[in-house]
Amino acid sequence: MNFASDNSTIVAPEILDAVAGVNSGFALAYGNDDLTRTLERRMSEMFEREVATFLVATGTAANALAIAHCCQPWSAVLCHEASHLITDEAGAPEFFGGGVKLIGMPGENGKFTPETLIDMIGRGRGVPHSVIPAVVSLSQSTEFGTVYRNEEVRALAEAAHARGLAVHMDGARLANAVAHNNGSLADATWKAGVDVLSFGATKCGALAAEAVIFFDPPRAAGMASRRKRGGQLFSKHRFFAAQFLAWFESDLWLRLARHANNAASKLADGLRAAGLPPVWTVEANEVFVQLPAAADARLRAAGAAYVSWPQEFLPHGTVALPQHKLIRLVTSFATSDADIEKFVMLARGT
Amino acid sequence: MNFASDNSTIVAPEILDAVAGVNSGFALAYGNDDLTRTLERRMSEMFEREVATFLVATGTAANALAIAHCCQPWSAVLCHEASHLITDEAGAPEFFGGGVKLIGMPGENGKFTPETLIDMIGRGRGVPHSVIPAVVSLSQSTEFGTVYRNEEVRALAEAAHARGLAVHMDGARLANAVAHNNGSLADATWKAGVDVLSFGATKCGALAAEAVIFFDPPRAAGMASRRKRGGQLFSKHRFFAAQFLAWFESDLWLRLARHANNAASKLADGLRAAGLPPVWTVEANEVFVQLPAAADARLRAAGAAYVSWPQEFLPHGTVALPQHKLIRLVTSFATSDADIEKFVMLARGT
Amino acid sequence: MNFASDNSTIVAPEILDAVAGVNSGFALAYGNDDLTRTLERRMSEMFEREVATFLVATGTAANALAIAHCCQPWSAVLCHEASHLITDEAGAPEFFGGGVKLIGMPGENGKFTPETLIDMIGRGRGVPHSVIPAVVSLSQSTEFGTVYRNEEVRALAEAAHARGLAVHMDGARLANAVAHNNGSLADATWKAGVDVLSFGATKCGALAAEAVIFFDPPRAAGMASRRKRGGQLFSKHRFFAAQFLAWFESDLWLRLARHANNAASKLADGLRAAGLPPVWTVEANEVFVQLPAAADARLRAAGAAYVSWPQEFLPHGTVALPQHKLIRLVTSFATSDADIEKFVMLARGT
Amino acid sequence: MNFASDNSTIVAPEILDAVAGVNSGFALAYGNDDLTRTLERRMSEMFEREVATFLVATGTAANALAIAHCCQPWSAVLCHEASHLITDEAGAPEFFGGGVKLIGMPGENGKFTPETLIDMIGRGRGVPHSVIPAVVSLSQSTEFGTVYRNEEVRALAEAAHARGLAVHMDGARLANAVAHNNGSLADATWKAGVDVLSFGATKCGALAAEAVIFFDPPRAAGMASRRKRGGQLFSKHRFFAAQFLAWFESDLWLRLARHANNAASKLADGLRAAGLPPVWTVEANEVFVQLPAAADARLRAAGAAYVSWPQEFLPHGTVALPQHKLIRLVTSFATSDADIEKFVMLARGT
Repeated sequence: MNFASDNSTIVAPEILDAVAGVNSGFALAYGNDDLTRTLERRMSEMFEREVATFLVATGTAANALAIAHCCQPWSAVLCHEASHLITDEAGAPEFFGGGVKLIGMPGENGKFTPETLIDMIGRGRGVPHSVIPAVVSLSQSTEFGTVYRNEEVRALAEAAHARGLAVHMDGARLANAVAHNNGSLADATWKAGVDVLSFGATKCGALAAEAVIFFDPPRAAGMASRRKRGGQLFSKHRFFAAQFLAWFESDLWLRLARHANNAASKLADGLRAAGLPPVWTVEANEVFVQLPAAADARLRAAGAAYVSWPQEFLPHGTVALPQHKLIRLVTSFATSDADIEKFVMLARGT
Repeated sequence: MNFASDNSTIVAPEILDAVAGVNSGFALAYGNDDLTRTLERRMSEMFEREVATFLVATGTAANALAIAHCCQPWSAVLCHEASHLITDEAGAPEFFGGGVKLIGMPGENGKFTPETLIDMIGRGRGVPHSVIPAVVSLSQSTEFGTVYRNEEVRALAEAAHARGLAVHMDGARLANAVAHNNGSLADATWKAGVDVLSFGATKCGALAAEAVIFFDPPRAAGMASRRKRGGQLFSKHRFFAAQFLAWFESDLWLRLARHANNAASKLADGLRAAGLPPVWTVEANEVFVQLPAAADARLRAAGAAYVSWPQEFLPHGTVALPQHKLIRLVTSFATSDADIEKFVMLARGT
Repeated sequence: MNFASDNSTIVAPEILDAVAGVNSGFALAYGNDDLTRTLERRMSEMFEREVATFLVATGTAANALAIAHCCQPWSAVLCHEASHLITDEAGAPEFFGGGVKLIGMPGENGKFTPETLIDMIGRGRGVPHSVIPAVVSLSQSTEFGTVYRNEEVRALAEAAHARGLAVHMDGARLANAVAHNNGSLADATWKAGVDVLSFGATKCGALAAEAVIFFDPPRAAGMASRRKRGGQLFSKHRFFAAQFLAWFESDLWLRLARHANNAASKLADGLRAAGLPPVWTVEANEVFVQLPAAADARLRAAGAAYVSWPQEFLPHGTVALPQHKLIRLVTSFATSDADIEKFVMLARGT
Repeated sequence: MNFASDNSTIVAPEILDAVAGVNSGFALAYGNDDLTRTLERRMSEMFEREVATFLVATGTAANALAIAHCCQPWSAVLCHEASHLITDEAGAPEFFGGGVKLIGMPGENGKFTPETLIDMIGRGRGVPHSVIPAVVSLSQSTEFGTVYRNEEVRALAEAAHARGLAVHMDGARLANAVAHNNGSLADATWKAGVDVLSFGATKCGALAAEAVIFFDPPRAAGMASRRKRGGQLFSKHRFFAAQFLAWFESDLWLRLARHANNAASKLADGLRAAGLPPVWTVEANEVFVQLPAAADARLRAAGAAYVSWPQEFLPHGTVALPQHKLIRLVTSFATSDADIEKFVMLARGT
């Protein structure tokens, strides 16, 4: 019963097979190989426009490099106050960005609104005393398992662009969001106004496949140097290109994401029926509930894995129940019905 | 009628005289001169213990260098959400600190409490995902013209020290706070638990005299290099040492600060009598009021100088009055009774 | 005929098998898994003492993080003027180190001597004007395919330690050096005075397996945060631990390195017999020769891959031959006798 | 007998008078005052074109900020291997530039040639492995007291511009160079191809007056933020603007520089006559000689101040004399004939 995270699962067999499948012959290092060229073309096809693709080692690196590339060191990055960027990257964006400042914004369901964004952009004492908002970053799907509709993204992007800000999307779970919204990758990103994307396949089946995607390739000028000196240019690059290629093949990415999302829906349904309604609407592959202490003890004893979540993030109007803890449950392409049923049964206690 | 800031005033004549007074003969550059040695001893006397003193060019530099010196790049600095550090330094602490993260805390009257501090230290996902709180920084006097009592500082320092954090004080207006609290510089700083101080004389009469003071000199190891590569080591150093020496002479610093504080009290009294009560208690040399639009127009027309303040900082329970703006009035050693009276009269409108 | 680099080869099948072999079940992300624990113990066994191990994505990252961790931002790093650190990392050490300065030293055969090191440490104007030497970094094997004898490393380390510097080894090709020197990993590193090691398996058979090794574990304090914010903490960490474990299994690392070194010897012998003597003694897996233009054309036409090397690095006393270019040939565990013979034949031209 | 440096002298009385002369009335802080506006116009007049002017605290800051502003973090800065930038700034350019790399070039008389520059630009492994040359920086006058003729600057600038590099001039002693070359400030800078100038008045009479000058103002975009977060924006800005204004008044700057240069000439003549010929041609205000140990002892005993210089910088073909040390003697506007005569007499020993 692993609900700890979608990155504590295995690699999708198709992807590992693809890695083994390219393990023959000579290939120039550092991305100067044919397979990387193939991936670059494939990525452009997937996004229905020419894009500039930079593979990197981790989602943290993708986010930090993408943001640094859209900033001056005195820039501000506006994002949700609960975003991974702020809470879980150990200051990577500040480091890669030469000391940029992240400014957290409140917002229901892990999303913020154009109104909040516009208000925040308007604050500050002006140049040179205040940092200058340069980027808005949104997580899709969000930290709370919700999903921005594409129109919501577009409204944020319009507010940002009108004020000179670039739009970054932290797409560590973009596949799950696209599976939920039922549109294309293009709809979810540049057609909705996204300028730069951290595109993650690792949480959705890959071994280690993360990319920074620039939808306006000239904007990527200098990024090759930035990636290299960030220690993010793999030498045996073909084995990372191969992962993304396999992920795209026959819509594997979408099938894996749908499995994860469906698993979350089933889990939420089961828990709701057991009297444990999700704290936030379950749209992608995460379920948050307030779990009674007794259920927690039973589940832990049975080997269930999941993480606690800070109660400070509970929505306005939701009471922190006594003797409960807020927990996060993440499903993946590898989550089985049996695990869901077992978890629900133990949570219910009967 | 200059109430724009205490750094838009002149230099105290005693200080300028002292600068001229040392303008003869040869003196080794970069602080290797006798006068700098004299100041270092004098600084230790003023603080009643041996301290390490580093003169720098600006308050921004003092804050940023002091904080960087107490941090690793992955550290967090906890401070009031309205602190100068967060709102007015254009990201200098992040830059000098290699990408440290500033975390703002709420708190009435520009102060935060030990409870808030302890709560904030306890947040986060743990190492290595979260930045690590390493410094708490408090402004004395505060951004809202209030003053921490020395016991309040001590309580914060105890909470910080018990959790391994260093205590930094932004003392751009420390003289005003000491004048209000009526204790010594030692009482206000290391006796209350302060480890590192940004000590500013510029706002209180000097031309450009700011210092970073370490109360535990071994903690300053490496600071000479940090200051130099920060572009903060003046070559003709004696002229900056001379300013602090003159400021300390015959309690000039205290006399200047008292004048400024008294001017603020008078101004506040006058405005209160005119139906414009201060938004925060006036303890140092700043007065904040909600000014009617008509009074604002009259004052501006008469050449009064002052700045608007973001209404978002209004205390809980204080209503933003319609057709009013929140303004900040700063007094200085050079503020005259005539200017105060004229300002009050124009504000009152009769 | 791939002699371009040892990172343009395939992955050793044993290593890819090991990656596939751990692809089942749940494993906590970010290195909190059992396999990573196993690797940490195994690494200590291999080095015959307790070490602190940090896996990272690339050799650039290993070097930059290791060096940053031994430096203050105002430190200097002394290394060979032809070192990878200076010429090929796009400034990564400067970036990760917050602006440290690399100082190149001359030296025959890609090595520098204690005398040169001591002379360089003694230069400079002193604090705070000069940066402060804090680390000496040496590449083992060197950029020119030579190998420091363990006693040579020890002499350098003694000179460094006596002056307060830490010793870093760039071991991207350490396996090849150990294979040549015929000692143990312990002999090659901490027993010879190395404090911190960039330990690379990628060039010697792995997919992407690089580690920073601290021989004095307390020195690694803070490294977990530094790695995370450097974007270098893999989420699916087990698949990277598995590579090192397989590499150590049954001395695979040594067998792969020996194959590569032997291939280089054969290649050098063949070229010498063809009138193309190696520019530097061939000790590890690299051969440098001055290649006539006609041979270059023949080889390129036949699909041979190799890189040109700057003639400025030719040893004192070696004349740059007209109509020749200096080339580097790198062998690997995958280099075949057939390729060597074919290359030599084409180089000879008959 | 102060020949230690031109920054160990007093402030020119005219400049201190000017500082006192503006010490009345209210002036907005942070450069938003009328006097700063006046200086900006005056600076444009002095350079005979519209320039963007940024006052800063030190020459180190001017250099580091100017260079950072023309660089990406992965840029290389090419400069003389003996330049102040490399040897005396404690890594400030690396810090402000986010980890840029300084590359030293050899060259006779403290100058480098276009040939050397072009050769150095052409080195490296290419993107993304090597840093990318972005700036050439030259010191005028040089670290060895020599002066580039304006045509020499122009030739370097043409070589740089043709290859996409910007040209920075470290003008800590530009006044001395202009005094020697007998042209205008415009001739010495932008007319010779300089893009950005660190313009120092401190060594030539001011208290603390250093500026970054952009000859193409749009290039300065963002510099206000960069300066502020660098801790380099003085609050009581008028007192720094006043120094430059006084320095320009009635050609004071040129008169002070000529005095210093003439003093150096006299000193060199005297020493040459005493059998101590200057090591480098004396063109500005510095004289280097190899001083016998006995003379050194006599001079030190008599209180003469001067610094030793590393013998490694001796020109090719100049033998380091046994029992001698290489010393640097710097003259200033305050150097008296009496001091020169006394120094020569003591050096001669009779």
